[in-house]
Amino acid sequence: MLTTDWKTLALQAQLIFGKSQSRTLELFPFDSDETLEAFEKLPSAIGKSVTDFGSPAKFPVDKYYETLSKKDVQITEADPVELIQDIKSGKYTCVEVLTSYFHAALIASKVTNCVYEFLPDEALKSARYLDENKDKLVSHCPMFGLPISLKEMIPLTGHSVTHGSLCYLDRVVDYNADIVNILIKNGAVPFVRSTNPQSLMMLECESFTHGRTVNPFNSDLTCGGSSGGEGAINGIHASPIGLGSDIGGSIRCPSAFNGIYGMRTTVGRIPTSDYFSCQMGSESIMSVTGPLTRSLDTLELLMKTVVQEKPWKIDPSLTSIEWRNHARKTPYRIGILKTDGVVTPHPPISRALDIMFEKLQSTDNIEVFEFEPFNHQKAWEIISALYFEDGGDDTRKTLKSTGEPMCPQTEWILGKDSVKRLTVEEIWKWNLEKQKYRKDYLKHWLLFNNTEGNTPMDALIAPVFPGPAAKHRTAKYWGYTAQWNLLDYPVLVFPVTKVDLTKDIPIKDYKPRNEMDEFVYKQYDSPESFENSPISLGIVGLRNSEEQLIDIMKLINRQ
Amino acid sequence: MLTTDWKTLALQAQLIFGKSQSRTLELFPFDSDETLEAFEKLPSAIGKSVTDFGSPAKFPVDKYYETLSKKDVQITEADPVELIQDIKSGKYTCVEVLTSYFHAALIASKVTNCVYEFLPDEALKSARYLDENKDKLVSHCPMFGLPISLKEMIPLTGHSVTHGSLCYLDRVVDYNADIVNILIKNGAVPFVRSTNPQSLMMLECESFTHGRTVNPFNSDLTCGGSSGGEGAINGIHASPIGLGSDIGGSIRCPSAFNGIYGMRTTVGRIPTSDYFSCQMGSESIMSVTGPLTRSLDTLELLMKTVVQEKPWKIDPSLTSIEWRNHARKTPYRIGILKTDGVVTPHPPISRALDIMFEKLQSTDNIEVFEFEPFNHQKAWEIISALYFEDGGDDTRKTLKSTGEPMCPQTEWILGKDSVKRLTVEEIWKWNLEKQKYRKDYLKHWLLFNNTEGNTPMDALIAPVFPGPAAKHRTAKYWGYTAQWNLLDYPVLVFPVTKVDLTKDIPIKDYKPRNEMDEFVYKQYDSPESFENSPISLGIVGLRNSEEQLIDIMKLINRQ
Repeated sequence: MLTTDWKTLALQAQLIFGKSQSRTLELFPFDSDETLEAFEKLPSAIGKSVTDFGSPAKFPVDKYYETLSKKDVQITEADPVELIQDIKSGKYTCVEVLTSYFHAALIASKVTNCVYEFLPDEALKSARYLDENKDKLVSHCPMFGLPISLKEMIPLTGHSVTHGSLCYLDRVVDYNADIVNILIKNGAVPFVRSTNPQSLMMLECESFTHGRTVNPFNSDLTCGGSSGGEGAINGIHASPIGLGSDIGGSIRCPSAFNGIYGMRTTVGRIPTSDYFSCQMGSESIMSVTGPLTRSLDTLELLMKTVVQEKPWKIDPSLTSIEWRNHARKTPYRIGILKTDGVVTPHPPISRALDIMFEKLQSTDNIEVFEFEPFNHQKAWEIISALYFEDGGDDTRKTLKSTGEPMCPQTEWILGKDSVKRLTVEEIWKWNLEKQKYRKDYLKHWLLFNNTEGNTPMDALIAPVFPGPAAKHRTAKYWGYTAQWNLLDYPVLVFPVTKVDLTKDIPIKDYKPRNEMDEFVYKQYDSPESFENSPISLGIVGLRNSEEQLIDIMKLINRQ
Repeated sequence: MLTTDWKTLALQAQLIFGKSQSRTLELFPFDSDETLEAFEKLPSAIGKSVTDFGSPAKFPVDKYYETLSKKDVQITEADPVELIQDIKSGKYTCVEVLTSYFHAALIASKVTNCVYEFLPDEALKSARYLDENKDKLVSHCPMFGLPISLKEMIPLTGHSVTHGSLCYLDRVVDYNADIVNILIKNGAVPFVRSTNPQSLMMLECESFTHGRTVNPFNSDLTCGGSSGGEGAINGIHASPIGLGSDIGGSIRCPSAFNGIYGMRTTVGRIPTSDYFSCQMGSESIMSVTGPLTRSLDTLELLMKTVVQEKPWKIDPSLTSIEWRNHARKTPYRIGILKTDGVVTPHPPISRALDIMFEKLQSTDNIEVFEFEPFNHQKAWEIISALYFEDGGDDTRKTLKSTGEPMCPQTEWILGKDSVKRLTVEEIWKWNLEKQKYRKDYLKHWLLFNNTEGNTPMDALIAPVFPGPAAKHRTAKYWGYTAQWNLLDYPVLVFPVTKVDLTKDIPIKDYKPRNEMDEFVYKQYDSPESFENSPISLGIVGLRNSEEQLIDIMKLINRQ
């Protein structure tokens, strides 16, 4: 380690960020001095130190659009899939597109603190290479020239991987993650590494490597986590697509809180096994990679591109399931989960479920009905015991080695009763409970509403979180996401609406079912607290049904 | 538990067997008194008690054919796939076929002690049901009327599952394993439960629930294990096909030692998760189900039948990979592994490898070359640490509860240095080593002999065990099978030849590389010790390539 003093390391982390920002401004200067001046004057979510959370604007997204030039907006607001066509057709060069996205990211970073590190030199080199070899490469590169953002925990040659803990600041890796190599080979240009929180086991985005990332739509709210930087930068449209990872909601919460698409993939579908985190080697519950993006077509493009590369020939933990094109003729049968029976969703979420129910009733080729959950409380009991088989010691040691303080959310999750060191026999016991629960749930799923000779339910629309984007340091109920990690079901998060100040009135005199339900209920004090927050839901399918979820989503969007 | 005295339980286990044998003789009497008399006079591998190993004939298979009636031979020696056609066409009824197989199993059981329990009542009921409902069922049942044997550890309603340990003799289960239900649905008739050894972690077949199962081709040799009863009963042709399980060689050793086909499937391809064993809930190394049979076509039929039932809709641990028909046009590239670099194979195995090398050189659509192994010693180091994460305590406790003595082979495996209780961090460490080794090996496999722009190696022909069927209590080197469990690669075992008394002369003055190599070397004292033993090899493929292995095998067999 460079030093065992966390404060020195925190300064160095800031320096890494600062240098990469200066270099970006040098290689990709704003088009005018006016823009630069406006950029410098922006209310900043980046504080003077990593314990200072800055003074962000209430609605950072407004500042973003006020600052970004028209030319940059034209590029960054184009649908990324169309943008790739524009590059291929010669309307833009890869360097031009990259330049606009760097401008967007600089501004987004300032107003939300979503960037851990810019990658100006590597990205410029890649974009130039693509431009110079366009004739040769363009036909083999479905993502030709598309910038891509990467969660900080994803290994990238020549950069340190901290996953939010300062003691790893000098762990500079000498390889790219397999998925990064695949994307680069297919024309993508990594341009930004996005922020992730301390320990990664947090549905928010606070760490001593970067401070706090705020929600672009309301800075009083969290951007979610742990792929929090990805949520914010994609939510504000300063990245066309990014990669996150998810072991308990870490792709889905940031997607939901920022009103974008995000997919928790099935374990073994796309490469993840070469990332860094705490508890490495723990296999009872596995983390997965997935895309976060505002564009469903771009999400599909990325998934298809990665799977078509047969990544199982690189990473033996993957399953050789080709990308399957869906041309379904019989109607999809879709359930709606109104509550998990443990924590009641807030009014805007319930409204979103009603919107979807109504919409689906009038969507061609879809049948919709209400789904009854099956013992979701038990799922949390099992998964929370298996997250930290060492009782959290690895995480604690990681922090202790530099004296790095524990963030309140880290302290909270490690302090839970369910988190304790397990014996071999206890691990086995919980694994058996997991196996049994998975089997019981599958049976429930396939039999549900299947009395009249119907085909089984294809997918389920469910909350991703009990409320809109949470107030800082209050995102404590993981049940609506961790449920599907335990079952290893893929989930596609999608935006539905925004908090409505007149419609989303708190429920009065609600009688909570339990302590967590009460805590969550109390958070929703008024719609004003959540003004402008996106409201999202997720569509859940059985294992390895990613293609089907995308197909259903397209049907719904066409409506 | 019924009692804590293992001797009382051992008597009860014998009683279960004895009753089921009497009932079989009652429901399926031999065709003549002569046959019955001959049966009663057979040299028996079933002792007076479970610690008595009887007095089997030197070559049990000869006694078997001397005893079995012509009519029974006609049925039991037919290729099972053709037999199904004969039932479908009306040449035989299901009950007739079952009757002959029961006669064969009664004799096989006597001469080798391969049957744990006969299933006369259930099987008769099933066969009658199929006969009575033939018109309705026959077109939906690809395995219509085919008897099937099941390793004792596979749950079957109304029967106890001991997996070789007496303390579980009263664990009567109330369900069939999923795969059993699938096979029954498709017309198969479970008729026999076959023997398995104490603790299942043994490449032989000794337990205090049944005694010792001997090799039908030479009773001085083991039938292999842990699916030992399956190996013997299928090797002698008294079952058309059976199911075993494999975590370190338990399908492949019995297949090799008995000269039949046997397949270690990829984890997640066909149902296994509802079986019983010790160390349940341990997920670092997973056991898999697979077929053992003398008929490649029947093996393919079973695999295809199970996968086409989409078993992932019953068992969520399975992967939704359909059965893929192979119609490969470019040549298969096949490596030959002459030694794993740890233990040198015995002369008959080396001869079998040479036979195959020569044969493949003249096989259409196949290219053959020698393959260099990649650090197989390391694989054993990793897998042997992960087999018993509890240091073997569960197995020890299982025995201790009834005072059941430890079989020498159980004692040997539990006494190895690598077997010790692991902490959470040690489990993680070994899992990481496993992940790294898997990735390195895949890279080695795909790059091997690939310098001139060749396509990668498709499959590898390798020893399954360093020698022919081992002498009792000497099958101690697991390296040639456990290697592929660690990598989770499927392996199809196939018969090549038999020990040749003139050709298979021991190597003189061999200098062993290590202690295990020396032990193994010394076992092969003369070809006479292994007279009549089958010699088999295995063909290994990358994960989920079961169809391809079968396709290659068909090509080879056609030669």
